[in-house]
Amino acid sequence: MSNREIKIGVAGLGTVGSGVINLLKKNEKEIRKKSGFDIKIQCVSSKNKNKKRNCDISDLNFYSDPLEMIENEDIDILVELIGGETVAKDLVLKSLKKNIHVVTANKALIALHGNELSKSIDDSKCDLYYEASVAGAVPIIRVIKESLNANDINWVAGIINGTTNYILTEMLKSKKDFDLVLKEAQDLGYAEADPTFDVGGIDAAHKLTILSSLCFGIPLDFNSIYIEGIEDIELDDLNYAKELGYSIKHLAIGRKNNNGIELRVHACLIPEKRLLANVDGVRNAVVVSSDAAGPTLYYGAGAGSLATASSVTSDIIDVSRKILSTSNNSVPFLSYQNNQLKTKKILDIGSITSRYYLRIRVSNKPGVLADITKIFGKKSISIESILQKEDLINDKNVPIVLVTHEVLEKNIVDALKDIENLDVVKGKIIKIRIEELDS
Amino acid sequence: MSNREIKIGVAGLGTVGSGVINLLKKNEKEIRKKSGFDIKIQCVSSKNKNKKRNCDISDLNFYSDPLEMIENEDIDILVELIGGETVAKDLVLKSLKKNIHVVTANKALIALHGNELSKSIDDSKCDLYYEASVAGAVPIIRVIKESLNANDINWVAGIINGTTNYILTEMLKSKKDFDLVLKEAQDLGYAEADPTFDVGGIDAAHKLTILSSLCFGIPLDFNSIYIEGIEDIELDDLNYAKELGYSIKHLAIGRKNNNGIELRVHACLIPEKRLLANVDGVRNAVVVSSDAAGPTLYYGAGAGSLATASSVTSDIIDVSRKILSTSNNSVPFLSYQNNQLKTKKILDIGSITSRYYLRIRVSNKPGVLADITKIFGKKSISIESILQKEDLINDKNVPIVLVTHEVLEKNIVDALKDIENLDVVKGKIIKIRIEELDS
Repeated sequence: MSNREIKIGVAGLGTVGSGVINLLKKNEKEIRKKSGFDIKIQCVSSKNKNKKRNCDISDLNFYSDPLEMIENEDIDILVELIGGETVAKDLVLKSLKKNIHVVTANKALIALHGNELSKSIDDSKCDLYYEASVAGAVPIIRVIKESLNANDINWVAGIINGTTNYILTEMLKSKKDFDLVLKEAQDLGYAEADPTFDVGGIDAAHKLTILSSLCFGIPLDFNSIYIEGIEDIELDDLNYAKELGYSIKHLAIGRKNNNGIELRVHACLIPEKRLLANVDGVRNAVVVSSDAAGPTLYYGAGAGSLATASSVTSDIIDVSRKILSTSNNSVPFLSYQNNQLKTKKILDIGSITSRYYLRIRVSNKPGVLADITKIFGKKSISIESILQKEDLINDKNVPIVLVTHEVLEKNIVDALKDIENLDVVKGKIIKIRIEELDS
Repeated sequence: MSNREIKIGVAGLGTVGSGVINLLKKNEKEIRKKSGFDIKIQCVSSKNKNKKRNCDISDLNFYSDPLEMIENEDIDILVELIGGETVAKDLVLKSLKKNIHVVTANKALIALHGNELSKSIDDSKCDLYYEASVAGAVPIIRVIKESLNANDINWVAGIINGTTNYILTEMLKSKKDFDLVLKEAQDLGYAEADPTFDVGGIDAAHKLTILSSLCFGIPLDFNSIYIEGIEDIELDDLNYAKELGYSIKHLAIGRKNNNGIELRVHACLIPEKRLLANVDGVRNAVVVSSDAAGPTLYYGAGAGSLATASSVTSDIIDVSRKILSTSNNSVPFLSYQNNQLKTKKILDIGSITSRYYLRIRVSNKPGVLADITKIFGKKSISIESILQKEDLINDKNVPIVLVTHEVLEKNIVDALKDIENLDVVKGKIIKIRIEELDS
């Protein structure tokens, strides 16, 4: 057994930080048996030393300022688990400048500042690893960078926000409305007090920013992503979708097409026999479809203290192995060599094509369906199936549920605008894209 | 763009070998964009130069003897895709002796001779990579060795033989018997002329030998694996299982329990809501359940020319990256440091516990069920549910389908021996274990 030792500093002692400290302690022997070296936590930082937390830091050097920590301590790897974009960004940049390798779980930092960080990595010859930034315990970043690297990737689609998936699963399971399930999720700790970051799709878009760069060789570009949340999905939609043979899931999708790259986050109907349609609760899953491997899927816990720590620690071991072998030929930060990253055209959402699930609330009058289908006809939209449902609460208004054939998004949007202007149509039309995700 | 170049030799030009040659050609630019170097196929070997094949080898140095190839050519990596254990073993040992790194897809070679190869790897300071040896395009070996390495792994369970999974899927889908579907699978090229290797579970056991070593830190030990094939599964069983809310899948299972390690390959009933229960046709999937990450699942094509080539080529890229960085600290061959591999007790199949699906064919006489349940009672086996089915073909004999609660395998085997001796019981009792695989 080697006596080699890697010294790390952990900045941030929240859910993930305490998970890393507990995991390195619990599996110290297991890790040494595989790696052949020891990982020593030399120092930690957190705002408040005496806060009650789920890990023991009594024999570690403590700092309330992480910048002071990396100045004072002689560490090989900084583990950034503070989150956010202010202190975390400063800390990571300064660490790289001091030739300290960095491991992080911070998706916002990578998604929004990764292009800038990439330059610092090149200058410092240090590594910045971020497996835990997407899909928790699921090793999707290593898989894309190291296992699918001989492939040309066609599309990636994932359930990568546990909160939204929990809410959609629970609505259908317990037949409750969105607001009620959201409140319960908040009480259970599955949703934040301000849930807009998750429920509105921002968090999933941060992760898609990272995945799409790795898959398609483009610079990180959060602002090009089209984002819809799940706030408009009603229990009725989940029930109707089920009746039609689909599950509704909130997906992040990146796809090459002939004209450019589609990057979008929104709810979708997925055929119920697909594995993704059966990923329930807080679990995450990502499908990658590539030219040689075909579709492959990766599934597991999307969050949680030890689950996320599993990914963080695998990064720590990987960087340690390189430090100890004085390797100078790491897997590139964004999968592609830096000078090979190319800005490609990101498509406007109007230019994608899809099949659509539509729910239209109408007055229960004769001729309504004729008025609606006439407008679809004008925009060359053809209808695959219609469900006409009775409304038990309000017998004057009834929902019509339609599934269209494949059509340009722009045409659907135009048609729905016209249809919403009809006197017989009440309120906003619910429109959800259908994704086949053949896998 | 770097001008660095890695020279490889490909031994074996069958399905996988031609896939590697085609993939390296098709995605030459894509691979260079990610790796920063070129992979040059310098030479190939195959028994017959002029055989019709799916790849162009006209501008490559050709050898009919792979041993001559590695003597004559100056290559960095040998890609062994001959298969089998005779020439392939010689070739790999000689390559390592000549300090040539090796990439292989040969599961039998690793499973049966890996302990010996391991010593040669240590002596040569060269790497031997074998991602493609288990589950085709699914990167399960890299995931266990590099992504879950901070975890203590509790169990691994997988559908890792496409032929058996295709047959079971197709029997249920087309309502055909085993023999007929097997014949169709042979005609389609999904099953070999001699199918016993796949259908009898040997191939899955080779792969489980590898997975169990990586997961549990034990030397490769094929002979300790308990193996059943799918020859006894009838269409009736698939139908009854479905009625009970289960799918029947042929699984390879490795599991730590308090007394040792269970290693077994056999058909199982799996609750139909599990993702594994929905993995159909020739697809493979592996679930790994570990202490920090929890259950994670990996799914994709288990075979095929380009799909397997995707894994082979990811290994070539990985080894190349190390060669070019003169790294001396690779991920260990069997995940654990060699001196940390420990022989652990492999459990006898009789000492496992499980729930069981049983199908018993009996004479349609009064008191039969009482006779049977009396024997179960003596062995402390309690019954969870009973389906009594009519037999349309033979109204004298009827099948009784039983599901037991958790019980020791030894007790079930003893009870079934007694029950098979009853005059009213006709023929062999079908016994299939039920696996919850909570994930």
